[in-house]
Amino acid sequence: METKKIMTPEEIVNTMMSKDYFSQWLGITVLEIKSGYCRLKATVKKEMLNGFGIAHGGFTYSVADSALAFSSNSQGRKSVSIETSISHITSLKEHDEIIAEAMCETQTERLGHYKINLYLSNDPEKIVALFKGIVYKTSGNWD
Amino acid sequence: METKKIMTPEEIVNTMMSKDYFSQWLGITVLEIKSGYCRLKATVKKEMLNGFGIAHGGFTYSVADSALAFSSNSQGRKSVSIETSISHITSLKEHDEIIAEAMCETQTERLGHYKINLYLSNDPEKIVALFKGIVYKTSGNWD
Amino acid sequence: METKKIMTPEEIVNTMMSKDYFSQWLGITVLEIKSGYCRLKATVKKEMLNGFGIAHGGFTYSVADSALAFSSNSQGRKSVSIETSISHITSLKEHDEIIAEAMCETQTERLGHYKINLYLSNDPEKIVALFKGIVYKTSGNWD
Amino acid sequence: METKKIMTPEEIVNTMMSKDYFSQWLGITVLEIKSGYCRLKATVKKEMLNGFGIAHGGFTYSVADSALAFSSNSQGRKSVSIETSISHITSLKEHDEIIAEAMCETQTERLGHYKINLYLSNDPEKIVALFKGIVYKTSGNWD
Repeated sequence: METKKIMTPEEIVNTMMSKDYFSQWLGITVLEIKSGYCRLKATVKKEMLNGFGIAHGGFTYSVADSALAFSSNSQGRKSVSIETSISHITSLKEHDEIIAEAMCETQTERLGHYKINLYLSNDPEKIVALFKGIVYKTSGNWD
Repeated sequence: METKKIMTPEEIVNTMMSKDYFSQWLGITVLEIKSGYCRLKATVKKEMLNGFGIAHGGFTYSVADSALAFSSNSQGRKSVSIETSISHITSLKEHDEIIAEAMCETQTERLGHYKINLYLSNDPEKIVALFKGIVYKTSGNWD
Repeated sequence: METKKIMTPEEIVNTMMSKDYFSQWLGITVLEIKSGYCRLKATVKKEMLNGFGIAHGGFTYSVADSALAFSSNSQGRKSVSIETSISHITSLKEHDEIIAEAMCETQTERLGHYKINLYLSNDPEKIVALFKGIVYKTSGNWD
Repeated sequence: METKKIMTPEEIVNTMMSKDYFSQWLGITVLEIKSGYCRLKATVKKEMLNGFGIAHGGFTYSVADSALAFSSNSQGRKSVSIETSISHITSLKEHDEIIAEAMCETQTERLGHYKINLYLSNDPEKIVALFKGIVYKTSGNWD
């Protein structure tokens, strides 16, 4: 009898990242991954600026949303974001590097609740944005 | 005596777009702009896909966030997003084209409240995402 | 062969209201009910004020949340709120009467998305709060 | 020369609670208060149930919103809630007692960001709801 191999959190995120062209374009680097947790970094490039010369809100959101996807899928079930909110607190300029730290707060059979904090990598006290996300956990496993 | 020229909504958005490198990269086209209102379109390209082979949530968010920036700034005051939420409803695949329609719901002296609906351009009944945003209106005018 | 009677939107909301002691305490009156839509009214009483002498945010939220429950359940499936947000825009004083108008924006198999606008009954242009809610639609029907 | 007396966090919350008729009706008890932090408890009574025989979402929201008001005002500036969201995770029945724990995550000159966790008092691992709130800090001090 064959047993289905369950993928580790690292294998799941590596598999996702290999086809996640948007996270690649954003220059996201995975720093740490555990079940229900991840830490990423990314740097603001010129193509990510908006009309005010600061990072577009979509840059910060996208990094947080990748952190949501990685931390939730790392728990073993294929999961998709259904509702998220983000508070934009500190504006970013070109070359600023941010860290996104995601953690699972609680989960039920079908829903998972995550919190992602974004801060400057060279000044962790400086909160860039606060993100809250809910994912729907499908019945498909990462195996 | 010199009078300060107030910019029109179109002039404001053109000025913003000319330096908004992220909206340019996203391929956003402005379809219509009025004070407190705008309609944009954008198409999912391969670089905007995530690890599931569908559009990254950051793509949809970013288009909506640009619509928020354009509709709020078009009212004449320089405005920045402080809090936004998005419900992801329909997943998008490569080549799908979406419309983002933004409208001001109400505003007070310092805050403006906007609703942005995103739907498929070839099937307007198909809601892709629902976005809600609050901007802080600075004391700086577009003039 | 017996056919299960499907309840009308009015019957569903009447059944809910008859046991909804909190909505009763709040003094909520149902003004109109259709599938996926409802309109309620309620008046700020002294017991609903907070430490600033204005209506507690929980008053406005609760009226909106009842409108969410009634409009979503009126569509025939037993539904529970999973995620909501509210923007508090205009403060209310004792004796102010508000209207909450709820409508379904879109729904999928398991989730329904609703928007609830709250305004002064004697000045409908005066937005009191904007509420967004997502419900989970259980497999239980109102019959 | 007279110096304005600055109120302590406890004095501020006591002053607020003495006129906060809604928090009184909800049966809220303040367990702990520090600058930017508070912990409250409240018990579900029959008048707080909804049509499903469980606690109305407005009960949980209201306790969290009071925790937001107390934790933010305890920092010395008169502050009002402008935007909040709540995820309803575990339903409550009559006699359940919950704890709401509020903490300031970060603040800027005009805005403060708070997180409020709600859980069962006899089972702190059981998350009832997750609440996020933003307040506007007025220029008025508690003195």
